[in-house]
Amino acid sequence: MKKKIGLLVTGGLLVSSTAHAQAPSVEALSISLDMVWVMVAALLVFFMHAGFAMLESGFTRSKNALNILMKNFLTISIAAVLYLAIGYALMFGSSGGGFLGLDGFFLTGHEDQIGFFIFQAMFAATCATIISGAVAERMKLSSYILLTVAMTTFIYPVVGHWVWGGGWLGELGFSDFAGSTVVHLTGALGAIVAVKFLGARIGKYENGKVNVIPGHNIPLGALGVFILWLGWFGFNGGSTLAADPTLIPHVITTTMLSASAGVLVSALYTRLRYKRVDASLTLNGALAGLVGITAGTGEVSPIGAIFVGMVAGVILVEAVTFIDRKAKVDDPVGAIAVHGVCGIWGTLAVGLFSTSTGLFYGGGVTQLVIQAVGILAVMAWTVGTASLFLYIVTRFTSIRVTKEEEITGLDFSEHGSSAYEFKETLFSDNSSTPEFGTGLVHRLDNLGKTSTKVKQV
Amino acid sequence: MKKKIGLLVTGGLLVSSTAHAQAPSVEALSISLDMVWVMVAALLVFFMHAGFAMLESGFTRSKNALNILMKNFLTISIAAVLYLAIGYALMFGSSGGGFLGLDGFFLTGHEDQIGFFIFQAMFAATCATIISGAVAERMKLSSYILLTVAMTTFIYPVVGHWVWGGGWLGELGFSDFAGSTVVHLTGALGAIVAVKFLGARIGKYENGKVNVIPGHNIPLGALGVFILWLGWFGFNGGSTLAADPTLIPHVITTTMLSASAGVLVSALYTRLRYKRVDASLTLNGALAGLVGITAGTGEVSPIGAIFVGMVAGVILVEAVTFIDRKAKVDDPVGAIAVHGVCGIWGTLAVGLFSTSTGLFYGGGVTQLVIQAVGILAVMAWTVGTASLFLYIVTRFTSIRVTKEEEITGLDFSEHGSSAYEFKETLFSDNSSTPEFGTGLVHRLDNLGKTSTKVKQV
Amino acid sequence: MKKKIGLLVTGGLLVSSTAHAQAPSVEALSISLDMVWVMVAALLVFFMHAGFAMLESGFTRSKNALNILMKNFLTISIAAVLYLAIGYALMFGSSGGGFLGLDGFFLTGHEDQIGFFIFQAMFAATCATIISGAVAERMKLSSYILLTVAMTTFIYPVVGHWVWGGGWLGELGFSDFAGSTVVHLTGALGAIVAVKFLGARIGKYENGKVNVIPGHNIPLGALGVFILWLGWFGFNGGSTLAADPTLIPHVITTTMLSASAGVLVSALYTRLRYKRVDASLTLNGALAGLVGITAGTGEVSPIGAIFVGMVAGVILVEAVTFIDRKAKVDDPVGAIAVHGVCGIWGTLAVGLFSTSTGLFYGGGVTQLVIQAVGILAVMAWTVGTASLFLYIVTRFTSIRVTKEEEITGLDFSEHGSSAYEFKETLFSDNSSTPEFGTGLVHRLDNLGKTSTKVKQV
Repeated sequence: MKKKIGLLVTGGLLVSSTAHAQAPSVEALSISLDMVWVMVAALLVFFMHAGFAMLESGFTRSKNALNILMKNFLTISIAAVLYLAIGYALMFGSSGGGFLGLDGFFLTGHEDQIGFFIFQAMFAATCATIISGAVAERMKLSSYILLTVAMTTFIYPVVGHWVWGGGWLGELGFSDFAGSTVVHLTGALGAIVAVKFLGARIGKYENGKVNVIPGHNIPLGALGVFILWLGWFGFNGGSTLAADPTLIPHVITTTMLSASAGVLVSALYTRLRYKRVDASLTLNGALAGLVGITAGTGEVSPIGAIFVGMVAGVILVEAVTFIDRKAKVDDPVGAIAVHGVCGIWGTLAVGLFSTSTGLFYGGGVTQLVIQAVGILAVMAWTVGTASLFLYIVTRFTSIRVTKEEEITGLDFSEHGSSAYEFKETLFSDNSSTPEFGTGLVHRLDNLGKTSTKVKQV
Repeated sequence: MKKKIGLLVTGGLLVSSTAHAQAPSVEALSISLDMVWVMVAALLVFFMHAGFAMLESGFTRSKNALNILMKNFLTISIAAVLYLAIGYALMFGSSGGGFLGLDGFFLTGHEDQIGFFIFQAMFAATCATIISGAVAERMKLSSYILLTVAMTTFIYPVVGHWVWGGGWLGELGFSDFAGSTVVHLTGALGAIVAVKFLGARIGKYENGKVNVIPGHNIPLGALGVFILWLGWFGFNGGSTLAADPTLIPHVITTTMLSASAGVLVSALYTRLRYKRVDASLTLNGALAGLVGITAGTGEVSPIGAIFVGMVAGVILVEAVTFIDRKAKVDDPVGAIAVHGVCGIWGTLAVGLFSTSTGLFYGGGVTQLVIQAVGILAVMAWTVGTASLFLYIVTRFTSIRVTKEEEITGLDFSEHGSSAYEFKETLFSDNSSTPEFGTGLVHRLDNLGKTSTKVKQV
Repeated sequence: MKKKIGLLVTGGLLVSSTAHAQAPSVEALSISLDMVWVMVAALLVFFMHAGFAMLESGFTRSKNALNILMKNFLTISIAAVLYLAIGYALMFGSSGGGFLGLDGFFLTGHEDQIGFFIFQAMFAATCATIISGAVAERMKLSSYILLTVAMTTFIYPVVGHWVWGGGWLGELGFSDFAGSTVVHLTGALGAIVAVKFLGARIGKYENGKVNVIPGHNIPLGALGVFILWLGWFGFNGGSTLAADPTLIPHVITTTMLSASAGVLVSALYTRLRYKRVDASLTLNGALAGLVGITAGTGEVSPIGAIFVGMVAGVILVEAVTFIDRKAKVDDPVGAIAVHGVCGIWGTLAVGLFSTSTGLFYGGGVTQLVIQAVGILAVMAWTVGTASLFLYIVTRFTSIRVTKEEEITGLDFSEHGSSAYEFKETLFSDNSSTPEFGTGLVHRLDNLGKTSTKVKQV
């Protein structure tokens, strides 16, 4: 690029651009537009990882905040590299009997699919990172990395091949538009297996009592949910794979409505059941609605999407309660309920609410049965392989930090650091402490005068 | 979707895509491109709600942080569902005498407008959520929800119909490109009415003294401002409704310049007036510039946009001071000054700076008068309806939490929780506390050796 | 805009849109698509400033958090206005002997380049804001502003002209796709000069000992890194300047892979060298990979990008250690290592890894030599002009706050405020403190009963 100027002007005068040395064909332009849309969507899915990181970090204790951030950064990084090397080939290579792909390692021979690859790489990372929240505060970083490698190179790509890569479930008619099962349920199943191998955090279940271990920074977690919600529009919207002017707004609308319904119903349901609008569950209600609509976003009506989200909102609250209190499975951020239980619901909801094949729209039970078969197959595969993998790993090493490390916090034991250093501000002696914080201008008048101690209410 | 692979390749080989079974027409492609742009813009407007949530949460006290987050999540969710059911029809349905729309409930008969609907739904939510900041720290969640319902189903859609939906103000020639009046002033008017019904926070005005109640987390608030600024490019940019290669960069440039001028002038003006560059007001200066340019972004020149933002920066500082100290209206985040006063300024600025109709460009005063008429009409409508609505509500219930609840904080009283749990880190005994936090690698050398207590400066 | 409805429908029925009164030509549509892509990219680059603000604020002490936020907000604002007035003309105006541009102040005569201008304005701001992190916690706000003015109106635009504006380095064949040298190295050189004039923070180097001054909020910093990473896809991806369906996904993929490799290698290398996976360095490893791939993103293969990022990850750790401990240059956030050292690496990497001209691909050493020449020229120019500028400034005033101000913190001394007010929550007496924080629903069961003190582990 010798001279950038002149390449891009508003009026239509186009100078010296190689790409447009001549007027493009309509076909070429159509391909360019599809690519622009899918790349924007890929970036939104990338950004979901910031959302996961903030959500998981905020919903756990401050002594483990760095460790969770590291797990999220490492997950997306491992996934990108290994999905290029191996995962994409197993998922989208020429099918070996409908079970897994066989070629295209390092994109060899599929170089022209690089746009599709990078979009899908973001999905692979999403599936893997779901686990990080469930195993938070106690899983060794090194063991977590091993599991991430297994998920992104093998366990997830095989599921993906079955459904999206030309495999047997897709052939059967299993419908999962953007991955309620392929991405979310698969990730949640990996999570539940890992949690079973790990056990609960120290102090979570004591003498038959279920203790609460509150998150340390819910505003950060809430930001994470907003980022995830934003990213989800790319997750679902980009799965159109084309700049379809009818399908894209439909997908964005159903995604928005289901998430909204999830929020509203979670808020209302916790209000009715527990006398308070619970903040954490309402935030998770958004994610429940999003996971719930992921499979059917393209073929559910706007009103159908509201119903899907409403049901997801109730399921979420009950699932979190059941998993935490009855099943005594310690999932600090509720990932299994959100991605697993609501992933199943979303997959089945296609069989109910699809305007083309759903039971409620006169489509009979065929689709519903196929959806159930797909769920069961993915459960068997993921639980089986993840269990086998962790069984082998645990023969060689413990996947859990020591008791001392857990009590001290993984930030110190794994990273030699802590996430926050507020001491200086909070514990400083008054002589150097400002007497007022930042509100709006009001206090500024005081600056010219003697500053007066502001009364805290 | 049976097999995703092959749908999207770089080279132009397109396999098995239904949408492009044949080459699209230029017209179809043009529609697709418009849709892609407007959908990207809609997502940016959606993300503004994360910005509002962070801004409002950061600028208020930590004991009310969860409650504000909940209000923001519920606002966007309520707006999405009710704008589908009712709001969009009243705003964009066939006009009943130029006053409000009459058809299209649940998009019935307007299914092909789904893209435009979802873009507009994000706007409706924006208008409503402006109120949440002004009523923070004292309004009951349930009463806030009622007001949100009234705003999104009726008060805002009628204003929108007048200006954008084929109503009388639009016919009159009132010009409000992206909503300085329609969205921001309307929201601010709802806010001022609600604040008048609520009264000030306990401790804000005592014995004739105006106390400062500082926000608890300004970095979070600053992030909110950055997110709002980003989202505003979609708010203004998407209002082109088409991928116009001349108008879009013009809108983005004027939006950027006005916001920048708002920042610079707020910083300078607080420096001159109060001897310090005030952080909160400078942050709000960005928003002032953004609200100010929203009406005229498409027809003001880049240099004109700088002037619009400069004036907005001064107006903001004076308006916040006046509202807080003279009018004694307790608006914790400055929403009335930012969205209301600067919304009026932005609307009038079209009559001054529009390169086609503005007074300063030889267009006479006609446009300016029309702008003033529009402002007055929207003020009368919104203040009237919102007052009536809250008057009725307050006949049945108090819209304010009790004194005890307010002192305890709404996080506990409404949600049974708190937003932060830093105790563990901050109050832990030294034996388990890391001696150094995360800086850069420097300290790592210590890890091999005996760790030494780092001197805090 | 009188009536928005009907402008945007999915089915293809297009009513009353001026822009599309008739079917656009393929050429016009192609221009529109290029513009949409570049504008989306510009917004992503804008958002990088939120990333810088969060990163720098989180990685420094809480007593200086507001000040850093202000510096970031002011930088983007100053850059936008001054780059319109002066910078763009010097960078992209008609070349005066290949050294600098001579026309186009306020875009006069180049009005049709407004889209390209706003994209480039975001780049100018990026270059300038790199300095803010390195000079954090001690540079006067007013002096920082002066330096920002110098960078955005003169020092950076001249470098930009040389490489991208038709100047001599571009003519020579110097290759810097998105600015490893033009933006990042130039910014880092400005930073190193400023730091040399400023000196280290109080307490950083004492009696031959190097002290650690930890950042106060690493999760906020980590969010900043994620936002920067996201924005970088626009930074590199938009530098295509066209919606090229082959180049865009290639750029996004190489950007992603290099960043990922940077993360993985930084994590691994700190683990090997210091026995711990260092969080701050791993986060900076992502940025190292991003800066490293910026010059070659368009002409390096995916596997090449992984190598570029791997090397960047090692370089980063060694550079931070060297600069901090050996050279004793106090750079609180590691900006010089990330943007400077890795910027040099990225520029040279084109000469090694470019598939068309790189040494490792049979291209000989020509490109490598040209790259080195460019680096040296930019170093001479930037160090020379920035030094001269700061030399002159320091003849008239100190650019550093007083010792008392530094110890108190710049938030108070410059802004009369503090960034956080957690006291209320943390120090409140127990009677009004909630006994449990927000976890998931678990605790909600308690709400109906007597609430029991939750045991903290």
